Amino acid sequence: MHGKVYLVGAGPGDPELLTVRALYLLQQADAVVHDRLVSRAIMSCVNPEASLHDVGKVAACRAGMQDDINALLLSLSKTHQHVVRLKGGDPFVFGRGGEEQLYLHQHGVQVEVVPGITAAIGAAASLGIPLTHRGLASSMRVVTGHLRDNRGLELDWASLSDPSCTLVFYMAMANCGHIAQALIQHGRDADTPIALAQDATLKNQRWGLGTLQTLPQLAETFSPPALLIIGDVVRLHPDYPRPRAPAQDTRHVEPFGALT
Amino acid sequence: MHGKVYLVGAGPGDPELLTVRALYLLQQADAVVHDRLVSRAIMSCVNPEASLHDVGKVAACRAGMQDDINALLLSLSKTHQHVVRLKGGDPFVFGRGGEEQLYLHQHGVQVEVVPGITAAIGAAASLGIPLTHRGLASSMRVVTGHLRDNRGLELDWASLSDPSCTLVFYMAMANCGHIAQALIQHGRDADTPIALAQDATLKNQRWGLGTLQTLPQLAETFSPPALLIIGDVVRLHPDYPRPRAPAQDTRHVEPFGALT
Repeated sequence: MHGKVYLVGAGPGDPELLTVRALYLLQQADAVVHDRLVSRAIMSCVNPEASLHDVGKVAACRAGMQDDINALLLSLSKTHQHVVRLKGGDPFVFGRGGEEQLYLHQHGVQVEVVPGITAAIGAAASLGIPLTHRGLASSMRVVTGHLRDNRGLELDWASLSDPSCTLVFYMAMANCGHIAQALIQHGRDADTPIALAQDATLKNQRWGLGTLQTLPQLAETFSPPALLIIGDVVRLHPDYPRPRAPAQDTRHVEPFGALT
Repeated sequence: MHGKVYLVGAGPGDPELLTVRALYLLQQADAVVHDRLVSRAIMSCVNPEASLHDVGKVAACRAGMQDDINALLLSLSKTHQHVVRLKGGDPFVFGRGGEEQLYLHQHGVQVEVVPGITAAIGAAASLGIPLTHRGLASSMRVVTGHLRDNRGLELDWASLSDPSCTLVFYMAMANCGHIAQALIQHGRDADTPIALAQDATLKNQRWGLGTLQTLPQLAETFSPPALLIIGDVVRLHPDYPRPRAPAQDTRHVEPFGALT
């Protein structure tokens, strides 16, 4: 017997932000393989008869661990009909869902991918910061702020300096200083607004506002995993400090002054 | 009386991809203001007693239309307790949710933003194309392929040419030729794989695979709105043609040969 493996996005943590399909599959599952990042509230939605497998994957996962997870999924698919691989956020955005899908396909296992609310989109909604906005940002880019093997961030910083693009760094806590410095060096304004969000969409969510320049100090007050949003759209947050109107200087225009 | 306005993402079209919160709010709504792009299946989830307001917004929306929608939301919030503003995808990714939130806040109306599965993430899951993948793409960027006032695409093409970044263009159908040409001119390989997807996640979904070079011809066989995915991750689609192994040439490595 070969069961089917469902690569399911659990979204940012609030169980109400599961998709209807994801909730249904959790209730039907015979086996669930889940990350440590999946919230307890979401795990409580799982069929109580399902076997649970905590693979505890965190940002800095040890070498070979993905191979173990692949092997576990394959093995479960031989003994269980509905195997759910539950991942924080979306399986195809920094979730390694592509690697698991590829491995399972190679072994003849049927796979269905169920998208989830990725952290950037969950945090943006929760904080009230649009990721794109007419006149402020015409595109949005999600970037990992943590590369495997701790080889440092080998990113195309010039490409990341486009001021019309909102940047969202996942798992950036260890590298906030480096990110701020590199973006400023490559032409992004040091006064570019930023937001940090921890546990976004959950009751205990914490967030802070600042600029690229103040980011390193702000980051010291947050714990990983946290999300970093960079771009002029952050100015739309109701609490973002409004610049003082220059007395006789009309060169400075503050189109969103009514926010305060 | 002042009601609350919920800016709700309807996701890509399949009602099972609504979030649990979105479904609950549709069932509780007193008034729903929706785009033409929201599917009939999703509209059938709405509380049958709610007043429906089709604001028929499409890509090329006429000038002043957003003002009318803002005014409608404000007016409904004075007579209805639960006003749902239902948008295809996510309200904060090309959804103008930021503008509506800003206007409503300025008028003292309470707003809650409920995130949705944005088209890029829905299509990726449905087609089986991961948006990031170890060794192929370390970031993902969503871009609008259609700018207001038909002023042409004034994009930072150099910034878009980073080969480690998967690009997803929304509403790109009118500009596929221009996008392909500009990316190639700015250094992106003409053989970069692309996928086009129309009605992704729905039963009638259509998709096609090609390269930047073949994109303009492929695009002629699709109707808007369609989504354009660009990047090496597209090679992971099971149907992507496997390059013929060069007889005596080991310079070409095909790490995903087992896909076929």
